[in-house]
Amino acid sequence: MKKIRVAIVGYGNIGKAALEAVTVAPDMELAGVVRRSLAGAMPAELAGVQVVDDIAKLADVQVAILCAPTRSIPQYAKDYLARGIRTVDSYDIHTGIWDLRQGLDAVARAHGSAAIISAGWDPGSDSVVRALLEAIAPKGITYTNFGPGMSMGHTVAVKAIPGVRDALSMTIPLGTGIHRRMVYVEVEDGHDFADIEAAVKRDPYFVHDETHVQQVPSVDALKDMGHGVNLVRKGVSGSTQNQLFEFDMKINNPALTAQILVACARAVMKAQPGAYTLIEIPVIDLLCGDREQLVRRLV
Amino acid sequence: MKKIRVAIVGYGNIGKAALEAVTVAPDMELAGVVRRSLAGAMPAELAGVQVVDDIAKLADVQVAILCAPTRSIPQYAKDYLARGIRTVDSYDIHTGIWDLRQGLDAVARAHGSAAIISAGWDPGSDSVVRALLEAIAPKGITYTNFGPGMSMGHTVAVKAIPGVRDALSMTIPLGTGIHRRMVYVEVEDGHDFADIEAAVKRDPYFVHDETHVQQVPSVDALKDMGHGVNLVRKGVSGSTQNQLFEFDMKINNPALTAQILVACARAVMKAQPGAYTLIEIPVIDLLCGDREQLVRRLV
Repeated sequence: MKKIRVAIVGYGNIGKAALEAVTVAPDMELAGVVRRSLAGAMPAELAGVQVVDDIAKLADVQVAILCAPTRSIPQYAKDYLARGIRTVDSYDIHTGIWDLRQGLDAVARAHGSAAIISAGWDPGSDSVVRALLEAIAPKGITYTNFGPGMSMGHTVAVKAIPGVRDALSMTIPLGTGIHRRMVYVEVEDGHDFADIEAAVKRDPYFVHDETHVQQVPSVDALKDMGHGVNLVRKGVSGSTQNQLFEFDMKINNPALTAQILVACARAVMKAQPGAYTLIEIPVIDLLCGDREQLVRRLV
Repeated sequence: MKKIRVAIVGYGNIGKAALEAVTVAPDMELAGVVRRSLAGAMPAELAGVQVVDDIAKLADVQVAILCAPTRSIPQYAKDYLARGIRTVDSYDIHTGIWDLRQGLDAVARAHGSAAIISAGWDPGSDSVVRALLEAIAPKGITYTNFGPGMSMGHTVAVKAIPGVRDALSMTIPLGTGIHRRMVYVEVEDGHDFADIEAAVKRDPYFVHDETHVQQVPSVDALKDMGHGVNLVRKGVSGSTQNQLFEFDMKINNPALTAQILVACARAVMKAQPGAYTLIEIPVIDLLCGDREQLVRRLV
């Protein structure tokens, strides 16, 4: 079996988990890791891994798994797709997903490459569950309840605010898709906590939710990367009411995101040129192994 | 919008529910209902519906929703696919699915038609959930626990046994994918209950499960078409253990099966020639409406 040559771009929590997931995937081979800067100490697990500051320095990359901060994804993806490298990402700003897909679709088609975007767990695998439940009970309401757990996207957004040394944004489910944001920050000397609090509350990530910001001496002491989802639909199949569905998970967040990205790195190799969200991809394409055997075992 | 012309083949519990689901689908138009025999009273809801004994008597059928007993599905599907009519079915004998797909695939390709097979809730939507969970946590164990509820396939199998006037097979979940079958039968005069009990226990539907058969005066008094699933996976994403997933539903069985068939009647119109299981179909294809709007709303 010819293995898929994969590069990991960005080496934060998700990049590190992606390295683990690529390593255990029987059909993949790590081409290397791309980091913005090669200065500083090299993590022990990268010994023996080719680490570069430009993907062009890696040989024969077929798919780039983009693990950089979500706001940098569009630029990375366009750049790589134009070089004929397929991309997968977990871009998670819901309001920007469609625009990203349109933008990348044009670039991918022009260069015979392909992208799967917003392929984490939400947006991502939860989107597949939501779409499936709407197909099988077309009328009704779906509520997606998150947490309790650390939101990586929200945490990164807080960390980008000047004066924030470290931050943690916890998502607390209040039911029926309503959430509270509990934000914990360490403040750098010379900065005012009140300014930071105001900046958090007007950030697009937080502006629609009940948000509480607290200053703490150590964010690290609070960190746990477990997370959860409770997705509920009550709906109508045909003319039959009260069809009840519930999807629950309790998971390590970066590990799940990275695993989904790796599954999509497999699927994107089978895709026609263009950009896709996960609901547009046959689920079987995410799986490793012989298609006929998968049908026999899983259907 | 040009509506999809649909025929319903077979008019038992699922056929009746399919009629309801087609009626409320904004993108579908009922061409008619095909019944084996036109003798006997016509159900009131079929007033105004064209009811025939051969699909050739219906005009411009694009998709046939096969609601006939599962063992008759292969013949109906081959026949219709060879006439260029697309088919969807909920064939539910797990060990026969792959063979059915291979057989129909050849016929469909030869005649430019397409089939989605085994598209009920299990096999069907549960298969999509199982495949998705295996993609996002590749190592681990999935248990599918059914019930308590009436198994339509098992009930039909019991009804086919000589001397059975009416029957009901209930599926009782014992956990970790183990089930008990509680079978209730009304016995026709001149037949021996012990013979029927033995015939049930050696039927392929029952031979692997703990099965209890009871004679009752009225099966009808016991009937409730509610059913349930509890699908659990505990697995590993990358090298991170203890990822926990659970999918639950409590549903009206024929209504859900019929709704999934109707969603697949939509999807099969978009499929390339061939035969597919539900895990090979992008979930978005099951949904009614503009693709771009669906991506905006569901991802």
